[in-house]
Amino acid sequence: MNMDFNKLMETLKGLDCENLYHDDFFLTWDKTQDELEAIFTVADTLRYLRENNISPKIFDSGLGISLFRDNSTRTRFSFASACNLLGLEIQDLDEGKSQIAHGETVKETSNMISFMADVIGIRDDMYIGKGHTYQKSVAEYVEEGYKDGVLNQRPTIVNLQCDIDHPTQSMADMLHIIHEFGGVENLKGKKIAMTWAYSPSYGKPLSVPQGVIALMTRFGMDVTLAHPEGYEVMSEVEEVARKNAEQYGGKFTKTNSMEEAFKDADIVYPKSWAPFAAMEERTNLYGEGKHKEIEELEKKLLKQNAEHTDWACTEEMMKLTKDGKALYLHCLPADITGVSCETGEVDASVFDRYRIPLYKEASYKPYIIAAMIFLQKVKNPEETLQKLLDQNKARLIR
Amino acid sequence: MNMDFNKLMETLKGLDCENLYHDDFFLTWDKTQDELEAIFTVADTLRYLRENNISPKIFDSGLGISLFRDNSTRTRFSFASACNLLGLEIQDLDEGKSQIAHGETVKETSNMISFMADVIGIRDDMYIGKGHTYQKSVAEYVEEGYKDGVLNQRPTIVNLQCDIDHPTQSMADMLHIIHEFGGVENLKGKKIAMTWAYSPSYGKPLSVPQGVIALMTRFGMDVTLAHPEGYEVMSEVEEVARKNAEQYGGKFTKTNSMEEAFKDADIVYPKSWAPFAAMEERTNLYGEGKHKEIEELEKKLLKQNAEHTDWACTEEMMKLTKDGKALYLHCLPADITGVSCETGEVDASVFDRYRIPLYKEASYKPYIIAAMIFLQKVKNPEETLQKLLDQNKARLIR
Amino acid sequence: MNMDFNKLMETLKGLDCENLYHDDFFLTWDKTQDELEAIFTVADTLRYLRENNISPKIFDSGLGISLFRDNSTRTRFSFASACNLLGLEIQDLDEGKSQIAHGETVKETSNMISFMADVIGIRDDMYIGKGHTYQKSVAEYVEEGYKDGVLNQRPTIVNLQCDIDHPTQSMADMLHIIHEFGGVENLKGKKIAMTWAYSPSYGKPLSVPQGVIALMTRFGMDVTLAHPEGYEVMSEVEEVARKNAEQYGGKFTKTNSMEEAFKDADIVYPKSWAPFAAMEERTNLYGEGKHKEIEELEKKLLKQNAEHTDWACTEEMMKLTKDGKALYLHCLPADITGVSCETGEVDASVFDRYRIPLYKEASYKPYIIAAMIFLQKVKNPEETLQKLLDQNKARLIR
Repeated sequence: MNMDFNKLMETLKGLDCENLYHDDFFLTWDKTQDELEAIFTVADTLRYLRENNISPKIFDSGLGISLFRDNSTRTRFSFASACNLLGLEIQDLDEGKSQIAHGETVKETSNMISFMADVIGIRDDMYIGKGHTYQKSVAEYVEEGYKDGVLNQRPTIVNLQCDIDHPTQSMADMLHIIHEFGGVENLKGKKIAMTWAYSPSYGKPLSVPQGVIALMTRFGMDVTLAHPEGYEVMSEVEEVARKNAEQYGGKFTKTNSMEEAFKDADIVYPKSWAPFAAMEERTNLYGEGKHKEIEELEKKLLKQNAEHTDWACTEEMMKLTKDGKALYLHCLPADITGVSCETGEVDASVFDRYRIPLYKEASYKPYIIAAMIFLQKVKNPEETLQKLLDQNKARLIR
Repeated sequence: MNMDFNKLMETLKGLDCENLYHDDFFLTWDKTQDELEAIFTVADTLRYLRENNISPKIFDSGLGISLFRDNSTRTRFSFASACNLLGLEIQDLDEGKSQIAHGETVKETSNMISFMADVIGIRDDMYIGKGHTYQKSVAEYVEEGYKDGVLNQRPTIVNLQCDIDHPTQSMADMLHIIHEFGGVENLKGKKIAMTWAYSPSYGKPLSVPQGVIALMTRFGMDVTLAHPEGYEVMSEVEEVARKNAEQYGGKFTKTNSMEEAFKDADIVYPKSWAPFAAMEERTNLYGEGKHKEIEELEKKLLKQNAEHTDWACTEEMMKLTKDGKALYLHCLPADITGVSCETGEVDASVFDRYRIPLYKEASYKPYIIAAMIFLQKVKNPEETLQKLLDQNKARLIR
Repeated sequence: MNMDFNKLMETLKGLDCENLYHDDFFLTWDKTQDELEAIFTVADTLRYLRENNISPKIFDSGLGISLFRDNSTRTRFSFASACNLLGLEIQDLDEGKSQIAHGETVKETSNMISFMADVIGIRDDMYIGKGHTYQKSVAEYVEEGYKDGVLNQRPTIVNLQCDIDHPTQSMADMLHIIHEFGGVENLKGKKIAMTWAYSPSYGKPLSVPQGVIALMTRFGMDVTLAHPEGYEVMSEVEEVARKNAEQYGGKFTKTNSMEEAFKDADIVYPKSWAPFAAMEERTNLYGEGKHKEIEELEKKLLKQNAEHTDWACTEEMMKLTKDGKALYLHCLPADITGVSCETGEVDASVFDRYRIPLYKEASYKPYIIAAMIFLQKVKNPEETLQKLLDQNKARLIR
């Protein structure tokens, strides 16, 4: 039974990941290949332990602080599950309840909530140019507090979605792909279509497509980004994708044709997002408190979206993919035509056919988050994982 | 000291309750006599362990998810206490915060929140024909997710109140009665009066009286349901009560006279509820979004209630009961005449005389919930309980 | 390494603190000198254990209930951290969510939430004459419930701020001072200036200055309370300060000059608060629901405040203190001139110079709260602390 475990430890031994220790996780492109593979490996190991009813708890007390600037079910529960699995209790920083509302500075709050915090998970994807910056500043302030002797431990930051990247999502997607294709070594040359799709609701975050093109290009995959004109993503992230493709022997292509993207694709990821330029404009309008202008912008965007209702993952489109059987991905919830909306991102029949793999895709997120926390808090990962296996404490006495 | 413990284990050994394992708890009448007695027995055992400062924790990690569609203090805290006692951390699914608001399907949400969930406690008693159905569908979806390999464990559902039954309440009431009367064997022929009582607030759930008549008729008791004309409960549940009375040698009587119900009663349970027919009408009006009609219905119901202010548990009424000393029950909070309202369900002097037993009645609920979770998650209850006793881990090192 | 630990145990042995056991913490002046020193000592011990990665967890399950009548970041997180450190799970009693809104009595609620509660932390500082009274009544009701056999354990109350005192704040401040001055024995004759300061926001609680003058006068310090005429604090608390100064060989002086207070001060604590008389008036107006009058009162108070903008902790003022180097204290958040407001309590340059000590001051609060809980729940503190050291369980397996 421990064969899989030993194989995972074998892999982990071969990876240079010590720099993850006492660091934060903001963007996948901050990390080396070894570091990302270490996170995948530890995620699988933690899952192995739990599925064999062995508790992977490494904390006997400590807080995992969640800071959400936006609604969330799955990310909230994924973070809660990851913290709980490792032994941390969730404490939600509700900025409504808190005195941040009363003009408290980020520097002060970051320290005030961290006296016994081991991790701070932040979701802040609302405004372009804000979310990532905010996460970096929190990290900087707790690092300072730790060095100044204010904090007994350095809470590690996990990016649960910002304006630039959504690493816990893209890495959960990737781990799903790795398992579906039987190993990272089988991904070389596989084509993935990250394409825009129509949704009646506008203004969906860019962090998902950006996260996907920046990550998938690192595994020798042939990544195609498709969207109607005017729906460009951040150019910096496209640049990252381009560089990655070069460095890791993959491909990064752009097109304004969904058909072209779907053609012979092994994997398709059709979802709606807002034009980067428009989101930038919206952010500035918010800054200036121009609410009338914002309403007009939203109207304009909805109208613009409506011109592209043909960008949908239909059965016809699926036929274009490799053997008509491409793996369909989505971060969920999807806008399903005739189910959650009249016209949406995907046909009900396509979505239903992929429901189980879609749910499995989501099931990796708690383990990805747990692996990030684990590797950022534990100095000797293999040693500690072996200790957990040997101590063999039941998660549930049944 | 372990004499009581051994006696409880003796009882448990005699009971056939293995079908509770990996099942859910929706309605008491889904369960066999043995299964209900097993829950009572395990509830007493968990209480025994805790009161002797022995931790009954069986989970080293895991989430207990609470889903409340209505305000709640005692049920919320009872569920939190039960989960915490067994080692589960509470994670509240606040449908405001979550993306369910954003049109997410129940099927999807049920799986998304359950990757590390061991139990889901649901309170949904607002609308007739909705609550129970909703709970069943959640159960069906997580069962499916478990079988499809999406979920590593099958979260068990505990009905914390639906439109049909309120099992954690009625079973806590029952366990209280068992202890007050010195054993289930002493309940044969005892008369319990489940009667309507006037409250200025209208529209109180039917699940309490329904739960009581359906459960108490299983222990050979003489159950009388009393209410003014027009305050009928669900006929299906009356049918259940009738059948139970036959099968278990009890009695089930209906009357429109509170006096008749109180006459020589050993136990009285006077509380307000809304007419089933009216609740059904209200549910439909909500469905059709007919808010003006709802307001009119509410006015009508309040007016109708006002005709029955004489339905109150007064000192005079108490005199009618067995030796004037019937055990007074209530699920709390009660509408106390002259205290929480001008005219209510019960005289202040009656309520005060029974305050301690009333609080004790409520104290059983956390243990009933814990016992349900325990028996639904643990394959070998006696073995595991014995293990907990032997391991003798202090709940508090003092 | 255990030298410090042994020294702390030495100190603890010498202190008579057994009356803290099974008692509550409302006001520092309810407690003896030994009892307060025991809390400081246990706070340092728990911190020693945690900082050496030894888990001080004494509870294997149990709830810590937080009841906040006002917004709060640091107190909320301090209480959560303290409970988590000892092994209690936080359960928030949100009176919005709960049925208290539905006219449930305090007596009933206190029992209903306490079946598995080990501690109840209450913050209720809004209305004069209400907060402390409320906390006492909760304590009385759970004591009653415990004696009546309703509650298996007696939850202990910790005052997280009331209208009279803010013991977790003043004791955290004091422990900070003790460490800054190298021991309580060095505080004799040290001058501390508790002074009013201007803030654009009005109506800040009196519990901080009251807590400080009542506590600091017990350690032989020279305590000066300074405020403009009309900003008097509760006379009862001034009386406590006067008596303490006598009994413990300290000094308590009042002045209407900030300069006089700052002159040669070793410690300064400049912060805004509302006039007691005005708060009393406001409370009565609320009681009578006179909202127009309340608005007028608030306008009046803001106007009155505006006459004292010169009451600020400026660089010039700091020059008056002992060697211009007095220790600057604040409970945070502070109103910083030019940062969080145009004109406030303190100059930005002064605040920044003391940022690290200010954050350290705050870092003691979780340990003070944990020590209160510990001593109120544990019969043999030294024995238990020794057991925790010997058992040497890692807080984090790293």
